Formats: sequence, C-alpha cells, structure tokens
Amino acid sequence: MDILLIGIGTGNPEHLTLQAIRAMKRADLVLIPRKGDDKADLSALRRAICLEVLGDDSRIAEFDMPVRDPANPSYLSRVSDWHDAIAARWADAIATRPQAEVVALLVWGDPALYDSSLRIAARLAGEVTVSVVPGLMSPQVLTAAHGIALNDIGAPFLVTTGRRLRNEGWPGGVDTLVVMLDGDCSFAALDPEGVTIWWGAYVGMENQILDHGPLAEAGPRIRERREAARAAHGWIMDIYLLRRSR
Amino acid sequence: MDILLIGIGTGNPEHLTLQAIRAMKRADLVLIPRKGDDKADLSALRRAICLEVLGDDSRIAEFDMPVRDPANPSYLSRVSDWHDAIAARWADAIATRPQAEVVALLVWGDPALYDSSLRIAARLAGEVTVSVVPGLMSPQVLTAAHGIALNDIGAPFLVTTGRRLRNEGWPGGVDTLVVMLDGDCSFAALDPEGVTIWWGAYVGMENQILDHGPLAEAGPRIRERREAARAAHGWIMDIYLLRRSR
Ligand SMILES: C[S@@+](CC[C@H](N)C(=O)[O-])C[C@H]1O[C@@H](n2cnc3c(N)ncnc32)[C@H](O)[C@@H]1O
Ligand SMILES: C[S@@+](CC[C@H](N)C(=O)[O-])C[C@H]1O[C@@H](n2cnc3c(N)ncnc32)[C@H](O)[C@@H]1O
Repeated sequence: MDILLIGIGTGNPEHLTLQAIRAMKRADLVLIPRKGDDKADLSALRRAICLEVLGDDSRIAEFDMPVRDPANPSYLSRVSDWHDAIAARWADAIATRPQAEVVALLVWGDPALYDSSLRIAARLAGEVTVSVVPGLMSPQVLTAAHGIALNDIGAPFLVTTGRRLRNEGWPGGVDTLVVMLDGDCSFAALDPEGVTIWWGAYVGMENQILDHGPLAEAGPRIRERREAARAAHGWIMDIYLLRRSR
Repeated sequence: MDILLIGIGTGNPEHLTLQAIRAMKRADLVLIPRKGDDKADLSALRRAICLEVLGDDSRIAEFDMPVRDPANPSYLSRVSDWHDAIAARWADAIATRPQAEVVALLVWGDPALYDSSLRIAARLAGEVTVSVVPGLMSPQVLTAAHGIALNDIGAPFLVTTGRRLRNEGWPGGVDTLVVMLDGDCSFAALDPEGVTIWWGAYVGMENQILDHGPLAEAGPRIRERREAARAAHGWIMDIYLLRRSR
C-alpha cells in the first residue's frame, strides 16, 4: 500500500500545488481527521478542498481523532501513546476499503513541520511505502503576508515552540526566531529592547489578522487582539517572527 | 505599480501553487533574470514554467543579471551594491513597457529564504506596492524527498549557511541544522560523532540526487558524489539537514 502525506498549505485552497492536486487524484482513499486538535472549521475546510479537487466524496473517509491522555505526566510518552492511537484509527479507516492501494492523508501546512503524520505512518503494519508531498507552511505564509524575509543577509534563523521560548528564553547565537505552537504569548516574558515582532493569526485564511511593530509596543496590543480573536472564533492558530537588532 | 514576487518552488514545474499561477496570469509583465548567480539551465526552466502558464512569451521580459564586484572587500557592501545594480536592471526592463501596471518576478523557492528580491524591490523608485506569493522552498523539498521531519518532537531547528557552519561550528542549544549556500561541504569540518546527514542536490528537479547516513560514513561519499555531479552538470545546488542525537 502507498501512503501519500500531502501538504495542503495553511487554509487557503489556492495554497495547493499542482503536485498535491495530482497526488490527491491518484489516491483511492483520502483520509480526513475530524476534530481532535483541529477545530471543526478546519475539518470542514479540508473537506471542502478535497471535494473541490475530487469532484465528489466517494473516495473520502473521515475518522475521529483520539484525545491525548492528560493523566500521563511524561510529555513524550503522552505524545507517543497518542500517535499509536491515531495509527489505529487510520488502520480502521483503511480497513473499510480493502481495495484501496493508494491512501492519501491531507496534512495542514507541510508534513515535515511540527506534524505527526510521518511518525504515525511509520506505525502502520504491513508493506507500506510512505511518500511526502510538501505544502506551504505557516512560517512562509506569515513572512509572505508581511512582505518580510525569514533571514537577515547571510544570517541564520531558528524555528522553535512557545514552550521552549518560555522555558529557555532567547536562545544564544541567533537574532531571528520563528515561534509556533504558542498558546501563551511567550514573547511577553522577553526583554523587548531592540526586538521587533511580526505576528499573524489564521495566516492565509479569510480571517487572517496581522500585526507588527517594536515588541515593547506591539506585544501588549497583540495579546489583546489574540484574546479577542480567540473569543470571537472559539479557536486560534497563530505564529510570529521575532528579530533582534544588534 | 504593483510588484509581485512569486515563489515558484525549486525546479519542478508542479511545485507551482494555484495562487502563484493566478498571480502570474494577473501580471502585465513577467521579469526573468538571465544567468548571473543562476545557471543557464535555471533561466531556461523559469522561462519554460512561464510559457506553460502564460501560453506565449508576449508578457515576458528577460534581463541580464549584473555581477558582484569581487574587488569590494566588505561582504555586506558588496551585496548591497549588487542589489542596487539589480534594481537598476529591473527598472530598465520595466521602463520598456510603460503600460505595465502589474509586474511579476519569478523567484526560485520562496522569496523569504536567502533571496534578495524583497530588498531589491524596496529600492525601486516611485509608487510601488510589493506583494509576495510564497513558494515551496528547498528545505521542505529536501525533507519531503527523504520522508523525514524538520524537527524532533517539540524541538527547534536552525536554518543556516555553509559559511556560518564553517566559521562558527555547530551552534549551541540546537540538534537539527538545515544548511544552505554551502559550496564547500562544511559538514566535513564537524565532529561526526552521533550526527546523521540527509543531503540532496537539485532537489525537486529531474536530476535530483539524494544520500543520507551517519556523517562519518556518508560525509566522504557525499563529497565525492557532489564533485562528480558538479563536473557532469557544470553547476550544482545542494542542501542538507544534520541531526545530532544526544
Ligand atoms: C501542529 S503545528 C502544524 C504546523 C504545520 N504543519 C505547518 O506546516 O505550518 C500547528 C502550529 O502551526 C502554526 N500554524 C499553522 N497554521 C497556521 C495558520 N494558518 N495561521 C497561524 N499559525 C498557523 C501555529 O503556530 C500552530 O500552533
Ligand atoms: C540563494 S539561495 C535561494 C533559496 C531559495 N529561495 C529557496 O527557497 O530554497 C540558494 C540555495 O538554496 C538551496 N537550494 C535551492 N534550490 C535547491 C535545489 N533545487 N536543490 C538543492 N538545493 C537548493 C541551496 O542550498 C542553494 O545554495
């Protein structure tokens, strides 16, 4: 069986590449997760993208995402158990279509970036080959929306998580950070001196919100806008780039 | 005038997104650089992608890339002078079509990643608005080809250049590096203990070459393959991911 992990971009149906469209059409079965970490809006969006490309839903199978066990105190083992549970759901969904030889999974953004599909696919039993179709990922959709570069000339940048930034502070040796998976506005704990933030929520989507400025001034404003947007929509996905001038 | 910087991916015409295709069609004029840093193959590829989308070449204008002044000893001022010179070429090419209101530039990979188009566009005189359309970039095309993730679970990664890696060694606090713009196999100078390399040349293109393995063993092999490929094609573009196990 061939498993195709297809990156679909960050919510704009026009983020699809020609390669992703062709891969979706090749599939006998397209698996779409329902809810879970994702919000209902996102499942609906994935389904709409799928229907648009495939014409009808005869090849689509939805499955319910399991939940993580909050009782497990170890972060890594909690994640690992959860991946096992998702792999079991994939296997169940695939078993309903024994004829399917090519199974596609639509992955938010790019499958290589803070996504578990590769690790879950590796858990499937039997003769399985896994291929990846890259998709636009949130850091580049953020920088495109702001019209900025990821890097200063010849300089490096670090992609990290809100948890890391909060626990470890600004890492040494690098002046540009892209921060993802941050539910707590971890930028608020930094010394804002000389730091500029470019922030985006729902980037690439219809309800995209952007803000930027010196961290001292833009930080509190972004916290408020984030809270208001989350209250209005019931969920939020946001990302930001921080650049420190020497 | 509207300037559209359109990311086209790393050489596979199917890397184009629907958004990029729509942006190209919106343009009255599409600028394509001839040679320069790029190799003739790449200009031809860009032209072919353009013709495929636009149908004919009536809206295409090619311009010759200026060369960097090797006599200027300062890296940053050499780059800055070069950007001035490119901006002048853009302006000349645009001046040949005074009616053009929407001017597109096809950018290799993503315009945010080690690319100068944003900085050059900022040098254009007059009332200019610049928009960016993101495109697949080489790090994600590399990881897709290898079927690997950019990050370990919850862990950060650094994107950097061969020059940095060579001058500064493995940076502190991070176990995954993506190295670009490396003409000298800078990985060869690292302590290979516990390090795995995933390397790719011409990623996404017809002549893509991949290799991976423990750095101690794969490193020398990759150096040889790189040299042979460069000799065969006359040019090479390569990128690699290094992961250190703790
Ligand atoms: C589990 S990770 C998945 C990342 C995804 N694979 C990608 O390539 O962007 C989820 C995080 O990605 C970022 N993200 C994904 N889509 C986003 C969007 N449309 N707007 C803002 N942030 C987004 C947020 O930081 C979010 O916490
Ligand atoms: C000037 S930078 C441009 C990067 C481009 N904007 C991107 O998004 O990938 C050129 C470097 O990108 C990497 N690169 C670009 N395209 C590549 C390809 N098809 N295969 C391997 N490396 C590539 C190489 O490291 C090369 O030295």
